[in-house]
Amino acid sequence: MLNKNLKSWIDVKADSDFSIHNIPFGIYSDKNVKHHACSAIGEYIIDLFELESADLLDMPRDVFEQQYLNAFIELGKTQTNKVRLRLIELLCDENSILNKDKAFFNKVFKKQSNVTMLMPVRIGDYTDFYSSIDHATNVGTMFRDPANALLPNWKHLPVGYHGRASSIRVSGHSFHRPKGQQKPADSEVPVFGASKLLDIELETAFIIGKSTEMGDSVTTEKADDYIFGMVLFNDWSARDIQTWEYVPLGPFLAKNFASTISPWIVTLEALEPFRVKGYEQTPKLLPYLEYKGDKNLDINLQVYLKPQNGKENLICTSNYKYMYYTMEQQLAHHTVNGCNINVGDMMASGTISGPQPHEYGSMLELTWRGTKPLKLEDGTERKFVNDNDTITIRGYCEKDGVRVGFGDCTGTLLPAK
Amino acid sequence: MLNKNLKSWIDVKADSDFSIHNIPFGIYSDKNVKHHACSAIGEYIIDLFELESADLLDMPRDVFEQQYLNAFIELGKTQTNKVRLRLIELLCDENSILNKDKAFFNKVFKKQSNVTMLMPVRIGDYTDFYSSIDHATNVGTMFRDPANALLPNWKHLPVGYHGRASSIRVSGHSFHRPKGQQKPADSEVPVFGASKLLDIELETAFIIGKSTEMGDSVTTEKADDYIFGMVLFNDWSARDIQTWEYVPLGPFLAKNFASTISPWIVTLEALEPFRVKGYEQTPKLLPYLEYKGDKNLDINLQVYLKPQNGKENLICTSNYKYMYYTMEQQLAHHTVNGCNINVGDMMASGTISGPQPHEYGSMLELTWRGTKPLKLEDGTERKFVNDNDTITIRGYCEKDGVRVGFGDCTGTLLPAK
Repeated sequence: MLNKNLKSWIDVKADSDFSIHNIPFGIYSDKNVKHHACSAIGEYIIDLFELESADLLDMPRDVFEQQYLNAFIELGKTQTNKVRLRLIELLCDENSILNKDKAFFNKVFKKQSNVTMLMPVRIGDYTDFYSSIDHATNVGTMFRDPANALLPNWKHLPVGYHGRASSIRVSGHSFHRPKGQQKPADSEVPVFGASKLLDIELETAFIIGKSTEMGDSVTTEKADDYIFGMVLFNDWSARDIQTWEYVPLGPFLAKNFASTISPWIVTLEALEPFRVKGYEQTPKLLPYLEYKGDKNLDINLQVYLKPQNGKENLICTSNYKYMYYTMEQQLAHHTVNGCNINVGDMMASGTISGPQPHEYGSMLELTWRGTKPLKLEDGTERKFVNDNDTITIRGYCEKDGVRVGFGDCTGTLLPAK
Repeated sequence: MLNKNLKSWIDVKADSDFSIHNIPFGIYSDKNVKHHACSAIGEYIIDLFELESADLLDMPRDVFEQQYLNAFIELGKTQTNKVRLRLIELLCDENSILNKDKAFFNKVFKKQSNVTMLMPVRIGDYTDFYSSIDHATNVGTMFRDPANALLPNWKHLPVGYHGRASSIRVSGHSFHRPKGQQKPADSEVPVFGASKLLDIELETAFIIGKSTEMGDSVTTEKADDYIFGMVLFNDWSARDIQTWEYVPLGPFLAKNFASTISPWIVTLEALEPFRVKGYEQTPKLLPYLEYKGDKNLDINLQVYLKPQNGKENLICTSNYKYMYYTMEQQLAHHTVNGCNINVGDMMASGTISGPQPHEYGSMLELTWRGTKPLKLEDGTERKFVNDNDTITIRGYCEKDGVRVGFGDCTGTLLPAK
């Protein structure tokens, strides 16, 4: 499926996330543009509204000048794929007007460093799964019982819960350390204050590309028709608030103060060449969760921690392929009861940990509940995230010299208000 | 605060929910109108777009011809209260053009029985609390330990979780019994099938009337500025799916297949005269949850079950005043960590049970897990909801002969697909 012969007349560095094989979608703004849909190649964004204004995409132009990509995505995969393939064509054709007409080039192409990326979609409902077996095992071992780390339902269904959509922000934002109730082990009663155990969760998420009606279910076989693409996701978590509040109805204030997503939606079509075999699932699942083919994805994932005025420290190297449940299974499960989904809904993976300690996707696991602090290059240590630390998640697929990546998913923790 | 002298020139029956003291807001459609904002008096809806078209409200007219009330609510309480008071004025003034001009009357007033009420707001995020002490105690007694029915956090914070907004439907809808995984007590492994324990939850919900920014917190003192009004809410629940799935991250597929809200938002201003003293809260709460004044509400609540082609059976009589936590406390808790809220967000009470068995707000409690079936007037019994049963929640305040009610919150359970 990978056409290695594709070559753009635009110079793209070998380590760029935005090769000719990617062509993701996002929304940008700059001093002249309030919000336009765009794609990316190398160090540039490509203004799709300007391209369509020159009749180069054969699409309704208004979908490219909206605040979010929802209207574009609602055109359907036939149309959005057509746009992506057309962009690849224009970017590979040396005789394209884009390559020949410098003034037009400058209208359409802008350096990524000169624009601001905005939220790519209006997220209606946001769901978070809990589908990494290493993460669930680590958490179960720490908080419950190493001998029975996984709860009885875990290997029978992709456990998930509803999250807060309002506080999801695009990469580059900052937010204040949350305050809330915690119950210290040595206290009879809960206390109120800033969270002391502020954590990250390395996740990815998929964006729904096709709506259903209430009562409809999406099978694992058809699921890919409903998945527009993927983003990186940091599900910031206040562990001390979480421990006290989450029984019996799940995480609430421990998570809904802020989450970060990357601005580029990498399409499922761009990710297809990087499919790999799924996790071996034993015991056998109920039929509605069975699937055929290679449905996992080989996505390299990294987490960096940068202290204020300091350097980036690579603190975690993981991979999406460690997921026990696939996106297709998650979506089939989510809709098997008739729950309807809408274009722009976001479904996150849950923390993606691998089997090795450096592959753990949260500080909770990386420092094993603070017992093994991380040592940073500046000599300081971290048990959890400190005030003014910046966390960046990066992710990319690589195969046969072809790279498709997500760009940065960055958020900065400010001190409590 | 209750002006008992108010009297409309429109005839309003004593048992009408829509007295001159109410003046709620909603959205309707009929054969000529796609969606207009409206209020209600007696057996009529009042078309606010038509009123404003005659310059009678002094508001931007476009907020009254939208699919949802969000834009109207975003005008702010000063404006929305002004509209409500202006309506009361017009409806009490015998010399109003509405009373004098029959043709105009017929343009503005329509029999409620001749229109279809639509979803009143576009709900961004939906939160469900768990704030009735009798409900939490009943559930804890049944599923955990009668001696320690309430979990340690329950009396320290209003436990809540995020729900699914996409499947909330307005009164009058029907939906199919959900299918999903359950684990029967006598089975080693989970099975798949239609839920056998389909339940209701008698709830109310409040609609957010003013947005905040991330990082902001709303105090209990200021909370009422952010609450536009209330609706009735049925949080349909599949108990067998819930029991198997909900540990450790809370209810998911057991609830997100369908929820029902009543179409009329009764404003906080209309409810103010029915404030009563709040539940005695011991132990003392952390300062951010303390509040002053009478912040509970005396709202009579009823649940009716109607078999297909049968009669309505009153199966529960409860009251909002049994709530342990007030809306103001719920909102202060929800935002204490900086979680931002948006106009149109909905926050539900959780099942509202009273101390007496006929006051329990779910079938689970009313039949005590199916051990004490309800006897209906047609001689049949119910442990949970049967296919083709229609459930209606009703609610109203009454004081000194003045009544303010919510109208019906009705949903019908169809057989599994």
